[in-house]
Amino acid sequence: MNVSIINIGDELLIGQVVNTNASWMASCLNENGMRVAHVFTIADNADEITRTLRLALVSSDAVLITGGLGPTKDDITKHTLCRFFSSHLVMHEPSLDNVRQIFAKRNYPMTPLNEAQAMVPAACTALLNKWGTAPGMWFEYEGKTIVSLPGVPAEMQGLMREEVVPRLRESFALEHIYHKNVWTFGIGESFLSDKIESWELALPENIHLAYLPQDGMVRLRLSAYGNRLDELEKQVDTEVEKLKSIVGEYIFGYDDDTLESVVGTLFSKHGKTLATAESCTGGNIARLITSVSGASAYYMGGVVAYANNAKEQLLGVQHTTLEQYGAVSRQTAEEMAIGAKCRFGTDYAVATTGIAGPTGGTPDKPVGTVWIAVADEYGVEARCFSFGADRARTVQRASYQALRWLQIKLE
Amino acid sequence: MNVSIINIGDELLIGQVVNTNASWMASCLNENGMRVAHVFTIADNADEITRTLRLALVSSDAVLITGGLGPTKDDITKHTLCRFFSSHLVMHEPSLDNVRQIFAKRNYPMTPLNEAQAMVPAACTALLNKWGTAPGMWFEYEGKTIVSLPGVPAEMQGLMREEVVPRLRESFALEHIYHKNVWTFGIGESFLSDKIESWELALPENIHLAYLPQDGMVRLRLSAYGNRLDELEKQVDTEVEKLKSIVGEYIFGYDDDTLESVVGTLFSKHGKTLATAESCTGGNIARLITSVSGASAYYMGGVVAYANNAKEQLLGVQHTTLEQYGAVSRQTAEEMAIGAKCRFGTDYAVATTGIAGPTGGTPDKPVGTVWIAVADEYGVEARCFSFGADRARTVQRASYQALRWLQIKLE
Repeated sequence: MNVSIINIGDELLIGQVVNTNASWMASCLNENGMRVAHVFTIADNADEITRTLRLALVSSDAVLITGGLGPTKDDITKHTLCRFFSSHLVMHEPSLDNVRQIFAKRNYPMTPLNEAQAMVPAACTALLNKWGTAPGMWFEYEGKTIVSLPGVPAEMQGLMREEVVPRLRESFALEHIYHKNVWTFGIGESFLSDKIESWELALPENIHLAYLPQDGMVRLRLSAYGNRLDELEKQVDTEVEKLKSIVGEYIFGYDDDTLESVVGTLFSKHGKTLATAESCTGGNIARLITSVSGASAYYMGGVVAYANNAKEQLLGVQHTTLEQYGAVSRQTAEEMAIGAKCRFGTDYAVATTGIAGPTGGTPDKPVGTVWIAVADEYGVEARCFSFGADRARTVQRASYQALRWLQIKLE
Repeated sequence: MNVSIINIGDELLIGQVVNTNASWMASCLNENGMRVAHVFTIADNADEITRTLRLALVSSDAVLITGGLGPTKDDITKHTLCRFFSSHLVMHEPSLDNVRQIFAKRNYPMTPLNEAQAMVPAACTALLNKWGTAPGMWFEYEGKTIVSLPGVPAEMQGLMREEVVPRLRESFALEHIYHKNVWTFGIGESFLSDKIESWELALPENIHLAYLPQDGMVRLRLSAYGNRLDELEKQVDTEVEKLKSIVGEYIFGYDDDTLESVVGTLFSKHGKTLATAESCTGGNIARLITSVSGASAYYMGGVVAYANNAKEQLLGVQHTTLEQYGAVSRQTAEEMAIGAKCRFGTDYAVATTGIAGPTGGTPDKPVGTVWIAVADEYGVEARCFSFGADRARTVQRASYQALRWLQIKLE
């Protein structure tokens, strides 16, 4: 089943806004077994909308339109679709109630313009927008479907999830799909692909595998197609178990997991506490850990010891260690981790010290060299990594590597 | 002058990759006085490419194509364009030299496939790609221009900047444009618009103003159109001076400035040093400061004092202060800033303590309440802010607010 997407908005054509709606919609449709044939990005202009809609209908079973629905843009999409269907606007009472409630809650006075947002062409089925004021609109046209949605991402996403996708799946009698995402870290896409080649080749025909590399990780997405959801789930779980026996050491989570969330869950579960001591990562590990709501239960805090003096004063790194081995060394990393563990009185501490660049590299310790240390009740360990010449990337990779190491320690 | 963009790539249609090429190109073209009429996103398919190219040519003076050029995808765009122009492939020697040099530098063996990347249709002018292996291709067609570029962002951007935009500007004899970006912080778009209304209305006709809100800041872009670049520059500078006299207190930088870069420049210039003490921002201020290369010259380090105990042990906040006023209070913020300044031995220190949420709020101190304090040689000051209910947004806003305050202190 082919879908085309039309994103309407002058702001997209001047490059002010990145078209994240297109990728979100494409990904959502793809996960639900629909193929996106084209994405058209066009201006807020009635003729353009009509022309592009006609064009999209030629090669698609459904056309999804976003944007041009707000009160300030004079609802250009709505009026254009109304003319396209030779229809007239009628009030959609549930949407009017919804607009009224939103205004009452915010204590804003309602204008006739706001009321008009609840009007829709008589030719459509209105889709109640629980996330905003403008309803979605569902049209049937010569055996095809045309859907118009607001351009505000949260409203579009809510309507897609709860209204549009279920209706499209039903209309086009699509098979069930069950997805499972497997997150790996520490192995490149091509190495991973080599390692799991025979498993991949032996996958049942109704299971598709996608490699989705992202921020130095590779996400594997298994998608099973069939008529019984419970069977698909069992089938995928069996394959994931096989996968774990081959590359389990690289797998850190599933579906919505992130490295910071799985680490957080482990610390909570074991009732352990954590501190950080960062030099080259400059607070990024702390930021990731504290981005998880509830982190205060296990994360006591950290030191960003950028200057050598701070490493000595706040973490108790020996002056002689810094002189003898340098700030970027196993010894300094270990003393930083031990220092953080003692000063914050935690069960674990992780430390980083390295050369983020672009300057400061030497032949011995080129830009991208990072020592990471983890201290726990049994002692302290350190390892050296090379993350390459890009400053931001080195900070990111070193931070993820530190979190991954903590996860392995706690598992 | 109208331009259409065609982005080719299956990965864009499954939503695996966000189409940032489209927004980058649109923004670049817009800044150079060209209007983007359409963006088409299509699959790696010869028929699709030809059909979309014909369609785009109808309404455009130039069509820019990206993607489908890599060695693994079998150069589908190149072969399609070759057929479109009834041309044949010829070797572009400068590109072959370029490919050879790249392989020699990386010590990789060259295959015939790699050599073939330097072949281009005889009908085009090849554009040397200094950022990668596949050359760009410039075609003239019935008074219009067709350009094909690699889909790798860095390669596309390099070719756009150095080859495509200057050639398009010349071909279509476009006026000069001079842009100046003015960054504001701490004022919403509508309030800003009210304040500068009379200035905006009095702008010369050849100067356009755009409001570009982003991450809680508003960027104002002035674009002057005319034939003499030096005059445009003078004209814009005069208007910016007027703007400064109206809303100077909200302006923190120009063009490529960021809050973290302007703060860094000020600390370097005055030879002063900085430390941070973060609770609710969890290391994000440290991360922003250390994202600027060379930050080690003025940033000594910081403490992420997430637990109360850490506030006491590492920053010297009084136990009685925490008991009497709570962790989220003026007193705690001030003692954190003073503690960081003393322990890191710096000239300045900035501290944050607040409730990032989603839990932990009280009627007195709702989620989003953040105290920020700055300590300097004259003493310490603290202010309270409300950043709303979103955790990530509160961290971001509080971090920027802290940086902005430091900037004002040092100016």
